[in-house]
Amino acid sequence: MDFWFSEAQTPNVKLSIKVDKQLFSGKSEFQRIDVFEAPEFGRFLTLDGYMMLTEKDEFIYHEMITHVPMAVHPKVRDVLVIGAGDGGVIRELTRYPEIEHIDMVEIDPLVVEVCKKYLPQTSCRLNDPRLTIHYEDGVRFIRSCKDQYDLIIVDSTDPFGPGEGLFTREFYGSCYNALREDGIMVNQHESPFYAEDAVACQRAHKRIVESFPISRVYQAHIPTYPSGHWLFGFASKKYHPLRDLDETRWNMRGLTCRYYTTTLHKGAFYLPAYVEELLRDVEQEC
Amino acid sequence: MDFWFSEAQTPNVKLSIKVDKQLFSGKSEFQRIDVFEAPEFGRFLTLDGYMMLTEKDEFIYHEMITHVPMAVHPKVRDVLVIGAGDGGVIRELTRYPEIEHIDMVEIDPLVVEVCKKYLPQTSCRLNDPRLTIHYEDGVRFIRSCKDQYDLIIVDSTDPFGPGEGLFTREFYGSCYNALREDGIMVNQHESPFYAEDAVACQRAHKRIVESFPISRVYQAHIPTYPSGHWLFGFASKKYHPLRDLDETRWNMRGLTCRYYTTTLHKGAFYLPAYVEELLRDVEQEC
Repeated sequence: MDFWFSEAQTPNVKLSIKVDKQLFSGKSEFQRIDVFEAPEFGRFLTLDGYMMLTEKDEFIYHEMITHVPMAVHPKVRDVLVIGAGDGGVIRELTRYPEIEHIDMVEIDPLVVEVCKKYLPQTSCRLNDPRLTIHYEDGVRFIRSCKDQYDLIIVDSTDPFGPGEGLFTREFYGSCYNALREDGIMVNQHESPFYAEDAVACQRAHKRIVESFPISRVYQAHIPTYPSGHWLFGFASKKYHPLRDLDETRWNMRGLTCRYYTTTLHKGAFYLPAYVEELLRDVEQEC
Repeated sequence: MDFWFSEAQTPNVKLSIKVDKQLFSGKSEFQRIDVFEAPEFGRFLTLDGYMMLTEKDEFIYHEMITHVPMAVHPKVRDVLVIGAGDGGVIRELTRYPEIEHIDMVEIDPLVVEVCKKYLPQTSCRLNDPRLTIHYEDGVRFIRSCKDQYDLIIVDSTDPFGPGEGLFTREFYGSCYNALREDGIMVNQHESPFYAEDAVACQRAHKRIVESFPISRVYQAHIPTYPSGHWLFGFASKKYHPLRDLDETRWNMRGLTCRYYTTTLHKGAFYLPAYVEELLRDVEQEC
């Protein structure tokens, strides 16, 4: 049987993945949710037909969105995670014993339910006693938060559909207010390569630069995302992602990663010339 | 009209590119050659159905295979280029006035002819007076070379078909002999992500480590190659790719690039943990 999942990464580019079988298909109040099993990628989750994660390469995204800020901030106790219903970010965060509490705000309870059932590789720590899951709109949840988190991780979908509000100026302002005076916000920041993604990336960067004194972008190779070249935003009130990286402190923890190293951490901020230019263009408008 | 080119990046993954029209299709003694025009990528060249370059992202490959060694070696006068019939490497090399002579050894005259006609963006410097094109098998050409090049760039296809010999121990040994005492060899080194490419990458690395005292691998984001995560090998008799990088000297040249910067140069050598492990595994066998 020839059974393929295809994602239109742009109207003119498709990535297709051979599928063994579909494990789940359902529709929540917010989106269509599917889980497939594939010979090359293991299980994978799509929302409204867009690739969210595969078992083969999710370690790259989840390690990079979590360990980069954790290796910079000297003491993270309280964390807010927006989105992240698959549990991958929670799995990485719960490796840090000094984290006392994690609020996870996921708009869609069905995503969590489906991931608990079909994606144990990422959802395996969703029962951690330090975690409170709030099934709520992240934009609304954060409005009432003030000065209470050391780290906010925005693990959003793309800037349309349910994820749209997580790319607004209002939301980034709320994140700023919700962070303590030395807090860090990290977000998934789209890709610089295809024109439509690059525009989303520029728009997000402009708004973050306007909201935070320190705002830098870093990159990773994520093969199942459009172009494979994906960006994250590092926004901060006090700590610089390179000058305040404490390699020794992080390496003393003895955490084993498959993508992240403190050396790679530095290289991830050394962006290609055309990406630097994309970002500089909007910084100059601020 | 719905007209698509698809490449099976593995038996279970396909990248498909919408095509406006096919500009050329022909068969040489060595391979099938096609040129297409695509709305997302401009023109693109395939050999035996495998993506070689697109006008949209070829700058990444050609800048990274050329400027990394050029920013390390203090004085490159004589260069040997193996493959590279599209002319992209030559275009980048001819930006350096101190280069006195380039031998380019391309097995297939039809590739050069087709690229001259249909891909002026890469072939635009194939008429440089410093360039001599030899239509010959690179493996054979290099056997008789001794102590005569400062830099060898191996711009090969994949390690099967016409490119197979360019991944052998014999070939790397010949490159070593063909280089002057402070010479550098750079090669396209496959990808670490999909299993079959990773094996090719490990095998090449093992053979290069056995042939050269300094052997390091660096990476770039090349969206139209399998997984988008592509590697290059930097093999050297004397210069270290990071310790001997002279950022000031290179930046004083005033060359403008779209991907390469001397800062990115450093980050390109900071590899993900799993890639370091792949390479270390074979280094320990040497």
